[in-house]
Amino acid sequence: MKADSTGLRVLSRAECLELLASVPIGRIVFTDRALPAIQPVNYVLDGNRLVIRATAGSKLALAVRDTIVALEADAFDQAGRTGWSVTVVGHAHAVPESRGEFSLLAHLPLAPWTPRGGEQPDVRDRYIVLTVEQISGRRVETHP
Amino acid sequence: MKADSTGLRVLSRAECLELLASVPIGRIVFTDRALPAIQPVNYVLDGNRLVIRATAGSKLALAVRDTIVALEADAFDQAGRTGWSVTVVGHAHAVPESRGEFSLLAHLPLAPWTPRGGEQPDVRDRYIVLTVEQISGRRVETHP
Repeated sequence: MKADSTGLRVLSRAECLELLASVPIGRIVFTDRALPAIQPVNYVLDGNRLVIRATAGSKLALAVRDTIVALEADAFDQAGRTGWSVTVVGHAHAVPESRGEFSLLAHLPLAPWTPRGGEQPDVRDRYIVLTVEQISGRRVETHP
Repeated sequence: MKADSTGLRVLSRAECLELLASVPIGRIVFTDRALPAIQPVNYVLDGNRLVIRATAGSKLALAVRDTIVALEADAFDQAGRTGWSVTVVGHAHAVPESRGEFSLLAHLPLAPWTPRGGEQPDVRDRYIVLTVEQISGRRVETHP
């Protein structure tokens, strides 16, 4: 078992990808007016990339374009004090409706949680595609 | 009800603080070798500041010193597609053992989840204090 400097178990790339695929929501990190910003997003893992749906014109859609971003997903059991966290870092790019790739992405099982995205999905949606370049994860296990 | 551009309900400062105090784990955002990094941390809300425990010499402890950071906490119900997210942005500073403030912080109900912190809490711990300067939150509510 490989552990990091704080005693957490270091997860393999395969374990990270499996855990990442097991939850629907992550948190994307970007910069908003020179300040750090975090926002929950629902995503799907599609091969070596994460696909996120964003409302056109939203802070997220404007900020996360052709830049390096991080996305974190996790799950914790408060009672047992166990859990895991996986972080992906990679280049993100936006896919507007005008690109051929858009219709392919629209077939992914990625229903928006936000009300407006739900009402007019074809008009308001942009896809953000994050290529998995770095991936790392840790697991907290039960300890005495 | 105030809603943002994506239709999410905007939470008041009081609602944000209440939700922030209701969960033990958040995610802190910092920069690691010029790349965005996110790491789960357990914290307590102590008045107008968040207190985080970090292992001395860890990436987090080294990165989050006298800088502006963000901390996000959330809770989601996947079945009902509801949830909330609160983000705090503010200045963070580290409190080493040598400062008088350290012993006061050590009385906070902030037990580490990580194994090494648990073994030698007095030796390995640093506290990171994040002043709540900006706070914002959104709630996703059930919609048809």
